[in-house]
Amino acid sequence: MVSLHTLPNGVRVVVDPMPELKTAALGVWVSAGSVDERQGEYGIAHLLEHMAFKGTERRSTLAIAEEIEGVGGYLNAATSHQRTGYYARVLKDDLALGADILSDILAHPRFDEDELAREREVVVQEIGEAADTPDDVVFEKLTEAAWGAHPLGRAILGTPESVRAQTPSSLRGFMARCYRPQEMILAAAGAVEEDALLKLAEDWFGSFSGEGEGAERRAPPFLGGLRHDKRKIEQTHLAVAFPGVASAHADFFATRLYADVLGGGMSSRLFQKIREERGLAYSVYAFADGFDNAGLLGAYVNAEAKHIAEAATIIRAEMEATAAAMTAEEVARGKALLRSSLMLGLESPANRIEAAAGQLFTYGALMDADEILARIDAITVADMQRCAARALEGPCAVSIVGPCKTAPVEAAFNLS
Amino acid sequence: MVSLHTLPNGVRVVVDPMPELKTAALGVWVSAGSVDERQGEYGIAHLLEHMAFKGTERRSTLAIAEEIEGVGGYLNAATSHQRTGYYARVLKDDLALGADILSDILAHPRFDEDELAREREVVVQEIGEAADTPDDVVFEKLTEAAWGAHPLGRAILGTPESVRAQTPSSLRGFMARCYRPQEMILAAAGAVEEDALLKLAEDWFGSFSGEGEGAERRAPPFLGGLRHDKRKIEQTHLAVAFPGVASAHADFFATRLYADVLGGGMSSRLFQKIREERGLAYSVYAFADGFDNAGLLGAYVNAEAKHIAEAATIIRAEMEATAAAMTAEEVARGKALLRSSLMLGLESPANRIEAAAGQLFTYGALMDADEILARIDAITVADMQRCAARALEGPCAVSIVGPCKTAPVEAAFNLS
Repeated sequence: MVSLHTLPNGVRVVVDPMPELKTAALGVWVSAGSVDERQGEYGIAHLLEHMAFKGTERRSTLAIAEEIEGVGGYLNAATSHQRTGYYARVLKDDLALGADILSDILAHPRFDEDELAREREVVVQEIGEAADTPDDVVFEKLTEAAWGAHPLGRAILGTPESVRAQTPSSLRGFMARCYRPQEMILAAAGAVEEDALLKLAEDWFGSFSGEGEGAERRAPPFLGGLRHDKRKIEQTHLAVAFPGVASAHADFFATRLYADVLGGGMSSRLFQKIREERGLAYSVYAFADGFDNAGLLGAYVNAEAKHIAEAATIIRAEMEATAAAMTAEEVARGKALLRSSLMLGLESPANRIEAAAGQLFTYGALMDADEILARIDAITVADMQRCAARALEGPCAVSIVGPCKTAPVEAAFNLS
Repeated sequence: MVSLHTLPNGVRVVVDPMPELKTAALGVWVSAGSVDERQGEYGIAHLLEHMAFKGTERRSTLAIAEEIEGVGGYLNAATSHQRTGYYARVLKDDLALGADILSDILAHPRFDEDELAREREVVVQEIGEAADTPDDVVFEKLTEAAWGAHPLGRAILGTPESVRAQTPSSLRGFMARCYRPQEMILAAAGAVEEDALLKLAEDWFGSFSGEGEGAERRAPPFLGGLRHDKRKIEQTHLAVAFPGVASAHADFFATRLYADVLGGGMSSRLFQKIREERGLAYSVYAFADGFDNAGLLGAYVNAEAKHIAEAATIIRAEMEATAAAMTAEEVARGKALLRSSLMLGLESPANRIEAAAGQLFTYGALMDADEILARIDAITVADMQRCAARALEGPCAVSIVGPCKTAPVEAAFNLS
């Protein structure tokens, strides 16, 4: 059974044994992301995640890589708007090494000046890759259209200029302010035992300290409007969003289920109308994203420019039509898909620790599968309709990347 | 324990129970891919995979989607140069439905004229998406540089023109020729029981027939040379390859291990020299790909144009240096990473059926984990050096997408 503990310094520890496995997934999450950056720091949360791997007081950059890969393990990390996560995947016997390294890179990063100079350039290359990926850009610009200059509207990677402006001192400052043990979660699943993992947690994470003030996260006003990046590519990417709800909101599951009925699977409205019935696009879907104090409810399609006006019109019409009436079969299918995606997620230790950390940050408690299933079961069509109707009142944010006549899209979403 | 059976019609059946799971992965693979296409058929293997979902004698397009998603399951499919695979992920009790649907879409596809007209356009949109994805294009052009007009050198998706030229009759012709029960594999893993699955296999796949002549696959001569797509993007993508070995070749594992030491992880030569020591790129790695009668050994990097010449020089130098001398530690790390990636793969039912089908196509038999581990253990540095030296004799294929002065790259790989 999964268990939750809190170390004296506030670090929460989740242990989730899966006795049939021979490998373990171990992760540390901190409640620090791009939304916590102040002016002059844009991109620092992500740059800090990179610099964690660039040497500690005890280990060089190369030694970190060689030690973990010497036992066939691997390390990874990811930075989002609100969180940074560091992961190790190891065989059962190497869990202690994984805990040691994750602790070391978070507690004792070296932030060497020369290493930083090179790593800033690596991140600049990563920014270039993202800029060449239209479906990354279209969502970056969508959040900008939704929330403008608010931190949730800013790109996680920052800009080449903002990244090149960071120093060892700015990294130390951000870390001292935002990496706090009471906002840190250590989670392990797979070939792990509760007692042994708790011992590792105490040994390696029990001495984390930090008096940082943290960051106050404020709800962003939803601005809406159009962003259009006119680049000449084969396909045009369109993403639209209305105000959704925060991830902890009682309506989050109902909003997510509405999005699934609208565009969550092959049998969904958007897939059937846009792809199967008209052949307009290969990729089309709807989504509901939740953050601490905001959310998005929207849809995405990627098609030749000449199909975009028609696709936009269908998306808007189906958003309204789905909000107005859903069949019992559609809702039952949506619930079945949500349930089975939960079951599938439970089979992977990496998914389990990610989900556990997400629940602790969102609800302050773990939510077991039965409770999630009960929440899904309890959703009514009226709940979904209320959520959709509230969102569709607007405002609306629209992002387009690629060649496109924007007037029909603006008309479809009442922007003009 | 995993078991292998052969139905009277030649369909092979793999059953791989994982008693702790509540879901199952079920897949059907046929030894039919883009290499089996004749002139006038380019893209048909992949288009056929799409059309399998567009209605059968018993089910409409919508009914296929609604039935599987009604139980929270999902369907997917993929076409490669040599194979086409169709998958279902379902909860334990829905395995029979998954087998029914996979059988139905393969045995009784409708190939309706109107559905085909629309689906051709969906595939044209998919071709557009691939054309906008530089790291797809760079590998398409790499195989073209390696193998020219040979089927292995051609893009799997075909071209808009070649796809629009396909008809219900051409689809039926390709299917009759290449979808043969003796080249078909049904594999299930997860919440499955041997007897029950065998019964489903007999019921749903026992009557597959086919007298198709199949296709003779010939080894392609490795041509080599440069392809340069000069599009204006932020980053330039460089992929290079030398002749590797076929997937069934005794040297395949040694070639793969050489590629891992060269550029397989954070501690690898290319990652350290190009990313960690010089900050030239975010993405860099080496690879060994195996096909029925050919292979590639190469490397990829993605960086600003001004870094490409230096990256190319380092890649060539490290290919030679690694072939000349490797440390015992490097080889041990490479073996540890190969072993643990095998162990991790065993934890996912979807990975297990994919691997089982691959082994049957490659070796004509299943290879258990212990045998793979023994093969990895047995690799010597001399094996790896022999494989690398043979590959580096050339010729060399180079593919570049993005702005680039090609002369220094051609010089690095002796193309000029």
